[in-house]
Amino acid sequence: MTISADGLMPFLAMDILKRAKALEARGRVVCHLEVGEPGAPPAPRVIEAVARALPEPQGYTNAKGLTGLRDGLAGYYERQHGVKIDPELVLATMGSSAGFILAFHTAFKPGARIAITRPGYPAYVNTLLGLGFSVAEIPVSAANGWRLTGEQIAAAHARQPFEGLLFASPANPTGAAVDRAQLAEIVATCARLGVQFISDEIYHGLDYSGPSVSALELTRDAIVINSFSKYYCMTGWRIGWMVMPENLVRRAEILQQNLFISAPTLSQIGATVALEERDYAEEQKAAYAKNRLLLGQGLRELGFELPSMGDGAFYAYAGIGRFSNDAMDFCLRLLDVAGVAATPGVDFDRTDGNGYVRFSYAGTQTSIEMALERMRDFTRAGG
Amino acid sequence: MTISADGLMPFLAMDILKRAKALEARGRVVCHLEVGEPGAPPAPRVIEAVARALPEPQGYTNAKGLTGLRDGLAGYYERQHGVKIDPELVLATMGSSAGFILAFHTAFKPGARIAITRPGYPAYVNTLLGLGFSVAEIPVSAANGWRLTGEQIAAAHARQPFEGLLFASPANPTGAAVDRAQLAEIVATCARLGVQFISDEIYHGLDYSGPSVSALELTRDAIVINSFSKYYCMTGWRIGWMVMPENLVRRAEILQQNLFISAPTLSQIGATVALEERDYAEEQKAAYAKNRLLLGQGLRELGFELPSMGDGAFYAYAGIGRFSNDAMDFCLRLLDVAGVAATPGVDFDRTDGNGYVRFSYAGTQTSIEMALERMRDFTRAGG
Repeated sequence: MTISADGLMPFLAMDILKRAKALEARGRVVCHLEVGEPGAPPAPRVIEAVARALPEPQGYTNAKGLTGLRDGLAGYYERQHGVKIDPELVLATMGSSAGFILAFHTAFKPGARIAITRPGYPAYVNTLLGLGFSVAEIPVSAANGWRLTGEQIAAAHARQPFEGLLFASPANPTGAAVDRAQLAEIVATCARLGVQFISDEIYHGLDYSGPSVSALELTRDAIVINSFSKYYCMTGWRIGWMVMPENLVRRAEILQQNLFISAPTLSQIGATVALEERDYAEEQKAAYAKNRLLLGQGLRELGFELPSMGDGAFYAYAGIGRFSNDAMDFCLRLLDVAGVAATPGVDFDRTDGNGYVRFSYAGTQTSIEMALERMRDFTRAGG
Repeated sequence: MTISADGLMPFLAMDILKRAKALEARGRVVCHLEVGEPGAPPAPRVIEAVARALPEPQGYTNAKGLTGLRDGLAGYYERQHGVKIDPELVLATMGSSAGFILAFHTAFKPGARIAITRPGYPAYVNTLLGLGFSVAEIPVSAANGWRLTGEQIAAAHARQPFEGLLFASPANPTGAAVDRAQLAEIVATCARLGVQFISDEIYHGLDYSGPSVSALELTRDAIVINSFSKYYCMTGWRIGWMVMPENLVRRAEILQQNLFISAPTLSQIGATVALEERDYAEEQKAAYAKNRLLLGQGLRELGFELPSMGDGAFYAYAGIGRFSNDAMDFCLRLLDVAGVAATPGVDFDRTDGNGYVRFSYAGTQTSIEMALERMRDFTRAGG
């Protein structure tokens, strides 16, 4: 399925968040399972470092970002992934959001067709369409654990060629992660087809079945996008990074200079410290791991379809066939009646998403427990 | 002159900054007159408010931004400009940089032609080209104080039509500002031609010949872009805002949700307080006003051509005809030999910019004095 440039749609998760905040302003207590945000602040040493820097003037940095941050990221790839990266290939970005914009405009001309999976992160489609690119969707299925295969890529490309593939593992909204062999097959298929591979690694670190594999372990031709938002609990700080292939890095730097100047300076300072605070991040992850089991079991007991919980991220993508065939309507009623905010599957899949809802388990255990309790009455009443 | 989508060029000011920082890393003391950054931190109360918020989790905000910030901005327009603005038309953005991206993709389709002045802010050309838009340049001249007129707009449009006009007053790099009647003429000309007017008001407040006029005083059809970077000393915080016409605000919100999610939360918190700290901002401005006279007189004495210092911002756009006809070469030598960083005019004007250099006077009086002292020897030796 190809979506035309006319297909720009709102990110419904954000509309649900807005409605939830309006309810809260009127005194309602809402369980926030709709937006993928850690409930914890960044590590204490991150906050201390930023507090120390706060009274100083915080000017623009180099377009690529603070040297210390980029050196730290090179060290991260060496320790976590066993690969040596030249810090000159690293750019600090305003969240992964700016990373996508830079990646698309660095690697492609407006109008180019980029492939993504369906279901997938809604901003993929909307950003591509909003910027004037075309989208090719490759459907993945619950039956295969929502995983993308080289065969599916090749078949989609044979039906209608595309110039790039943007792919996340672990994935949003399904939590699906590919292993090393599966990622190698995706990378090799892209290389064979002349497709620029963009690896969205934002959920790296949040992996419950073994460490995430970076595309950088397999190739230097991929554009790698990552962020401090999820693993390091820094969503609102709007700080991420990208690693560019050598032949594209100068164009990405020029675009960054002009489109964004540089990423927020205090956030760069905090991020530099965050890289050294993985023990803190692992504590948060241990809490998500507990929430994952709690939410998975709870949703299944309530009658949601959930063949697998996924291997990473902090989302459950659950079938609602027993309750509704209109995910947005289901989510609005769930919010208004039960005070539980969740995201309709149509955000992630415009074709089949009406049968699914995404629940985030990034919040506290208490909020998951309260949400399950509230949903018990709601689903008993028919959903 | 029309620039094609192939004309993407680096922002030379950023390359000069990079070289200056490399020199400093080797122990050189550099006078920074190249980047438009205030030398002071934000107001103390801004820092206090952010320090208080720092230990809390800083999640995404609504796409449009914190309600308190948007209400504060509505109050700003009422107090400073005597106009009532619905806060729902205001979006907090990741600096004016993100504001431009949102404005272009909200109002135009990729490929549309947008007019700008020449000389002008280099990121205008590069962002437009980088995003796949076309650029029409309208030359303005020193003889007319670098001001744009309705007549020039109409003449350029007759030569080659364009769909939008992006215009800054006070302007970068010239400091030129239009008065109320002149802005009204620009607005009326755009309305008559069916051209979407985008008013870049980032240097508002930094006006030395009377208060800046906002497009919102004259029309509700303009897209207004502004930022906390300059007047409020928050460049590295990457926080700005835009005011949208009613018929475009929903599309801008959807694009913001997807392209950026939301502006940095701590910066939004700081910006909300900054709006109440205009006394502090006026103190900074008083220092720029002194620097402006000092730099203007000093540059003229050294032999730079500077018929006017401009009415706003913090830049002097000086002719270097007596020393060089190659602005980049002049700036590189000025940096390497004299340790003074300034920006070559080619950044702002690819046609005639080789005859000009932009000096920023946003730094301290000491840095301006030291720069003039160093340039004295440099220019005596022939430049």
